Amino acid sequence: MTPPSVVIEFSTPFAVFLGDITSETFAKTGLGLIRWRPGECVGQVRLSAATYDAGVPDLTAANARSQGARSLIVGSAAVGGGVPDAWVPALCDAARAGLDIVAGLHVRLASLPGLAAAAEQGGARLIDVRVPPAGIPVGTGIKRPGRRILTVGTDCACGKKYTALQLTEDLRRRGYAATFRATGQTGIMIAGRGIPIDAVVADFVTGAAEQLSPAADPSHWDVIEGQGGLFHPGYLQVSVGLLVGSQPDAFVVCHDPLRTHVAGWPTFPLPTIPQLVERTMQLGRLTNPGIRCVGVALNTSRIPAHERAALLAHHAEQTGLPCVDPLIDGTDAIVEHLEGLFS
Amino acid sequence: MTPPSVVIEFSTPFAVFLGDITSETFAKTGLGLIRWRPGECVGQVRLSAATYDAGVPDLTAANARSQGARSLIVGSAAVGGGVPDAWVPALCDAARAGLDIVAGLHVRLASLPGLAAAAEQGGARLIDVRVPPAGIPVGTGIKRPGRRILTVGTDCACGKKYTALQLTEDLRRRGYAATFRATGQTGIMIAGRGIPIDAVVADFVTGAAEQLSPAADPSHWDVIEGQGGLFHPGYLQVSVGLLVGSQPDAFVVCHDPLRTHVAGWPTFPLPTIPQLVERTMQLGRLTNPGIRCVGVALNTSRIPAHERAALLAHHAEQTGLPCVDPLIDGTDAIVEHLEGLFS
Repeated sequence: MTPPSVVIEFSTPFAVFLGDITSETFAKTGLGLIRWRPGECVGQVRLSAATYDAGVPDLTAANARSQGARSLIVGSAAVGGGVPDAWVPALCDAARAGLDIVAGLHVRLASLPGLAAAAEQGGARLIDVRVPPAGIPVGTGIKRPGRRILTVGTDCACGKKYTALQLTEDLRRRGYAATFRATGQTGIMIAGRGIPIDAVVADFVTGAAEQLSPAADPSHWDVIEGQGGLFHPGYLQVSVGLLVGSQPDAFVVCHDPLRTHVAGWPTFPLPTIPQLVERTMQLGRLTNPGIRCVGVALNTSRIPAHERAALLAHHAEQTGLPCVDPLIDGTDAIVEHLEGLFS
Repeated sequence: MTPPSVVIEFSTPFAVFLGDITSETFAKTGLGLIRWRPGECVGQVRLSAATYDAGVPDLTAANARSQGARSLIVGSAAVGGGVPDAWVPALCDAARAGLDIVAGLHVRLASLPGLAAAAEQGGARLIDVRVPPAGIPVGTGIKRPGRRILTVGTDCACGKKYTALQLTEDLRRRGYAATFRATGQTGIMIAGRGIPIDAVVADFVTGAAEQLSPAADPSHWDVIEGQGGLFHPGYLQVSVGLLVGSQPDAFVVCHDPLRTHVAGWPTFPLPTIPQLVERTMQLGRLTNPGIRCVGVALNTSRIPAHERAALLAHHAEQTGLPCVDPLIDGTDAIVEHLEGLFS
């Protein structure tokens, strides 16, 4: 199956560029890449001022290229989201050495001084993962073969990406063909492909979701990274378009149990999990009448150890579904439930 | 109240440019302008090959300017949506004469040969009403003063714009302060301002709706042109964002009684009006718990005269709400119902 051209895609193996950072705080993207794609990361490229070490081999861009790397991924962020002047010569060197430069910056890579020329010289591509590709069509709503599972959330930033990644790993380990489908910049970097769904023009969100998760073998699972939340006053339209375009057979609700209100929108309480399940079913039935919830994923990283089991049990009882912390428990309990429903 | 800068706005009076068209079919935008803004249209600018006459005075661009026109609005369309070469010199002349050029074309005005230079020479602006302004913020969900009514539809193209225009007229005639808020290109041309909501980047649709209908006097009515439909498999995300960002107190359902399926999506049946009312309430309550349906607007233009009354009565009975054809009956029955609820 050829990936459709409207999906962003970059080549591997890769090296991670960390600039001159001095703290882990600014290396989130790079650390995510190293965690989720260890076999494809040849090492880190750092400037001499960097004191933070991600624990993989130090390389120059030329070394990375000679060790087979095809992309250099900007895995660090500077305060304010821009690119410090000091980073640009190193990025130019890498492009000149033939490494595609991949970044999810607020500025376009081509706007950095000299980088477009260096890329042309080296035959390298500049890939901005925040910029959706041209040519995304309008959604058709037509049912396509293959199975799909979407992560949805009671809010933004509550575990939708990592739950989807863990589900993909666990499905594969249990012998299923499964593909993680990325919809945000970090996810796209981890997957090596995807569409930044929130940056797509409104009319084309359902169409983008259809392209992201195309027709597949009937037994194949696409595991789609959710965005936003259906009760989010700023972003629900993104979540709705992604849901209807993805036409998932199944979804998992992700929730941060310590959060009571939408992060950054303090007058909006979070929905309960049953409310979110009901709303997701109502809207999702438009393109998949068989949609159903198959599990709950909680982020329990800040819950005292002795309270964890009771919290998971509470949500399992409330919903009648398996409830796990994907990063602690894995998602096998959800995959087993899925097996029972779709065998 | 200063209109926020993220709303497209053009100056009046205006002349309508009809190019060389030979049929009314291609003059829809121009005719809409003449119908809804008669006092502000100084006339039509046509090429010598044109055989279609919109029934307003013929002018050259220079004449139009000397009669006070400040904008020339492209009110005609060519097959395929492009701009025929033959039209471009006339548009350049108008720009050179100091008329802002306003269009809702598939191509940017600035890409037409010579037009950007002519506009600079004449001190004219090129206004593409399909292109949303930069700087639209994310939606806040915060309740703002002023009353709002939104038209929603069982489908696209079923009367949402004309219902909103008629409601605005009827509210004003009955003494209310009311403003039509345009969300599509034709509506923006008619209103002279607005935001093409379906062209906004997905993340900012709720924010665009908030900007379009800003805080106002508590007794003022904004009448907001709906887009798409909440059961539309391609465009529902646009409708959802517009609904939640508009936070309407009231809505009117627009429906074409001869349509059974979503136009262009033949496997998707239309929702019933009660289904649409319920879904609109569910989603709209997120930002306005008091949201309610206040009427039904049917397009009965193709219904036999002897069946009209029974059809309107059927829907009135089914919903318990006033049901009218806005272009035949006006919307007074809906406005009276609104008065009873919000006095």
